[in-house]
Amino acid sequence: MKHALPVTREADFSAWYQSVIAEADLAEESGVRGCMVIRPWGYGIWERIQRLLDDRIKATGHENCYFPLFIPLSYFEKEAEHVEGFAKEMAVVTHHRLIADGKGGLTPDPAAKLEEPLVVRPTSEMVIGSAFARWIQSWRDLPVLINQWANVVRWEMRTRMFLRTSEFLWQEGHTAHASADEAREETLRMLEVYREFSETCLAVHVVTGEKPENERFPGAVATYSIEAMMQDGKALQAGTSHFLGTNFASAQNIRFQNTSGEFELANTTSWGVSTRMIGAVIMVHGDDDGLRVPPAIAPWQVVIVPMLRDQPEDEAIVAYCRDLQKELAGLSTLAEPVRALLDLKPAKAATKRWGWVKKGAPVVIEVGGRDVAGGNVSVIRRDRLYREDGKLNSAVMPRGELVDTLSATLADMQGGLLAQSTEALRAQVAPVDEWSAVETHFAEGRRNPGWLDVRWSKPTGATLDKVVERLKALKLTIRNAPLGQTGCDEGPCIFTGEPAVERVLIGRAY
Amino acid sequence: MKHALPVTREADFSAWYQSVIAEADLAEESGVRGCMVIRPWGYGIWERIQRLLDDRIKATGHENCYFPLFIPLSYFEKEAEHVEGFAKEMAVVTHHRLIADGKGGLTPDPAAKLEEPLVVRPTSEMVIGSAFARWIQSWRDLPVLINQWANVVRWEMRTRMFLRTSEFLWQEGHTAHASADEAREETLRMLEVYREFSETCLAVHVVTGEKPENERFPGAVATYSIEAMMQDGKALQAGTSHFLGTNFASAQNIRFQNTSGEFELANTTSWGVSTRMIGAVIMVHGDDDGLRVPPAIAPWQVVIVPMLRDQPEDEAIVAYCRDLQKELAGLSTLAEPVRALLDLKPAKAATKRWGWVKKGAPVVIEVGGRDVAGGNVSVIRRDRLYREDGKLNSAVMPRGELVDTLSATLADMQGGLLAQSTEALRAQVAPVDEWSAVETHFAEGRRNPGWLDVRWSKPTGATLDKVVERLKALKLTIRNAPLGQTGCDEGPCIFTGEPAVERVLIGRAY
Repeated sequence: MKHALPVTREADFSAWYQSVIAEADLAEESGVRGCMVIRPWGYGIWERIQRLLDDRIKATGHENCYFPLFIPLSYFEKEAEHVEGFAKEMAVVTHHRLIADGKGGLTPDPAAKLEEPLVVRPTSEMVIGSAFARWIQSWRDLPVLINQWANVVRWEMRTRMFLRTSEFLWQEGHTAHASADEAREETLRMLEVYREFSETCLAVHVVTGEKPENERFPGAVATYSIEAMMQDGKALQAGTSHFLGTNFASAQNIRFQNTSGEFELANTTSWGVSTRMIGAVIMVHGDDDGLRVPPAIAPWQVVIVPMLRDQPEDEAIVAYCRDLQKELAGLSTLAEPVRALLDLKPAKAATKRWGWVKKGAPVVIEVGGRDVAGGNVSVIRRDRLYREDGKLNSAVMPRGELVDTLSATLADMQGGLLAQSTEALRAQVAPVDEWSAVETHFAEGRRNPGWLDVRWSKPTGATLDKVVERLKALKLTIRNAPLGQTGCDEGPCIFTGEPAVERVLIGRAY
Repeated sequence: MKHALPVTREADFSAWYQSVIAEADLAEESGVRGCMVIRPWGYGIWERIQRLLDDRIKATGHENCYFPLFIPLSYFEKEAEHVEGFAKEMAVVTHHRLIADGKGGLTPDPAAKLEEPLVVRPTSEMVIGSAFARWIQSWRDLPVLINQWANVVRWEMRTRMFLRTSEFLWQEGHTAHASADEAREETLRMLEVYREFSETCLAVHVVTGEKPENERFPGAVATYSIEAMMQDGKALQAGTSHFLGTNFASAQNIRFQNTSGEFELANTTSWGVSTRMIGAVIMVHGDDDGLRVPPAIAPWQVVIVPMLRDQPEDEAIVAYCRDLQKELAGLSTLAEPVRALLDLKPAKAATKRWGWVKKGAPVVIEVGGRDVAGGNVSVIRRDRLYREDGKLNSAVMPRGELVDTLSATLADMQGGLLAQSTEALRAQVAPVDEWSAVETHFAEGRRNPGWLDVRWSKPTGATLDKVVERLKALKLTIRNAPLGQTGCDEGPCIFTGEPAVERVLIGRAY
């Protein structure tokens, strides 16, 4: 039964990714172009992400609101860069009624054409900014710190489940401040919230840094990201935080009277993470048997599978399991109650066991007649699935031992997955000093090249465009310029030859 | 300061309703036709509703999923009654890109017209049913019990915040079963979940019952509702649960192999409640000073307002309040930790006090220098705002007494609000035996007529249409036929004169 998936990471990483999503029941194609159905196990992970991140968003003083799905066209026309960045991929509502088409089908009713078309929100700066303009009059109204959990639509041509879908779920924070300094501070505070959340909850090590000018959010003054390392050496941008300066405030007239009675433009920020994070979890923690879900975000951390055989003793096994489930649910781990499920679905125990392995439940407990008789349980840890001899690592232990050790086991697994992610990132980033070394490193055919860490002079405009072109020829992008650099080592920019001002990470990306 | 709102319920109930929404910062018009912005206090109430109802939905075995926002037109063509019920009010996406219109604005790009228009979901039976058809093969796959929290769009011509908006938020449960009996049982189980939730959490007493044929969900075999009594005597349908029989399964080919190996159509159900519930809470619990939020769904149950005067003693007051906030947050009430806020916004204490009264925070605690010196607090209960002499009922008490009594105070307020709602419903429903009594009761100019409880023969088809017409002339509708009737009292149907088979409630409604 080893390698429960039809394809390994080694054989075809992209096919493996799709197979994890299918075999772990995370999501599926919906029949609606570019939109997926998020199935219970996938959505359960998203609910855990929402709960844990929402706690952090609230703890930093933000309140949740809800803004309209539809944005009138005219709102978009106000910020030129912003609309240019999004106009190519927006779903547009033009009618509000259907009528019979005379051929047995339906068609939009020409008599119900909207005077002004509505855009399905690709992001909500424009509609939230217009509310900010109503809400903010005086310095006393600032800061405004709000967040929204919502669906957004970007009409992607090539879609891939969780990573790039026409509709996706996310949170978008939007804030307004009395000064640029305060807004910059907020931008970095939320980036740090994302980093801490990603590492603590997703067990995904990330690099925080500033994106280059060409990768900025349309309309932003500065964009920061968290970048994660996938097992195939590619980068995944897992969250972004934008300092918008007064660009949006100016387009939308978000003004306040300062303490001296003068009117000023507010400085705004926005920041978001999405269901894309689940894509990161898959590509960081998946293995050739399916997903491994970090305990903090596992909908069920422990699944109990009774081994029933349509025999009279089944009843005692189920009773034993019920009691065990209750006892485990009374424990706590990672500062929350343990989430323990008793799986009583009508299927064979071995099928259920492998189903939960593929889904990546952290701990699977099997209970048969012999276990009940001996007061034991058979325990499988998802992160230690096989013994050295290649056999399934199912440990029979006294029930009391399981109860005593479960909290620590889950915490240990959470920490172990983060350590693996940290080590994988460390091992797959190399510094180089010359452009030629970049070309060699990313030569055709090399597997998992990871990222390179290079000096650059932070060029802008046409000079940057040329750098971007050179990188693009190798399918590379600049991921970010990591924060916390204590001054760049001496040496020239590998692109321009000018004195370097900082180091940036370059790599292939999703 | 009595009657903090600009208008009373007595003077103009409808204007009062709008003023509560504005003054309690619940929501506002967004500038997008028919769509509202739900502000933090309103959204906080929705988050509490979500959390408490979601717990109940999961406890009854349902799992959350997420399905696409967009539904291809062709899906809708499959169920004739269903599409007829919704086609008149659907938002239709026809393009996926914008281009410059040559006049400085934007327009849908004719080159990016969708081959098949997409409907923004008004409800998800059609898209979820198509997933059910993929998921269900055998009796072993049944029941399928899922739920989704989502936004939906119905293009309403006349909108009213929370009650009828073009976009609204809701949960929609969808289930499939092996037999009609099991599906009917599920339909009634979820209706009961709604009743218990409404009474326990919203403190809104409701009547559960079956809707008449003409009020069924398009495509349903039977529709049940919970109906609540507003303070103006009108009804509000606060939730519905539908037994869909095999109608949708047949349109979408949801079949399973039964234990004998034969193929059968599944029986399905759907059920939902929405942000409309917040409208019910306002019209059941609001008073002339604003909203009164039942403690179970109050984002903050206790708000501490320090009475600061820009004096050196302010520091000690804030320290005392911080300590108090921490102590109160350590208490629990209604089986959860107390939610206590310290309000440090830069505004006058009296302004803040009245702000929280209008918002309906259950308990407001004011702390001034004298309170700190005496180890006291000044406590305002939102449900006992005025003394008999008409003055504000602010009780000075030792801090220890507040701590000892707060849990019970909040539980008492929750129970008291439900008792008021129960009594209001009881007092505003009257039985009558003749059609002429209906006409008299609902004569022009009568305030708060409430509902009438009448016998009927449960007519169908054209006979029912005539009944509906007669009621419509008096602006009345049949709300529902309450469940648990132990047989109808003897007597004829007030509409048809035939022997009655049950009693139904009739009234005006939102």
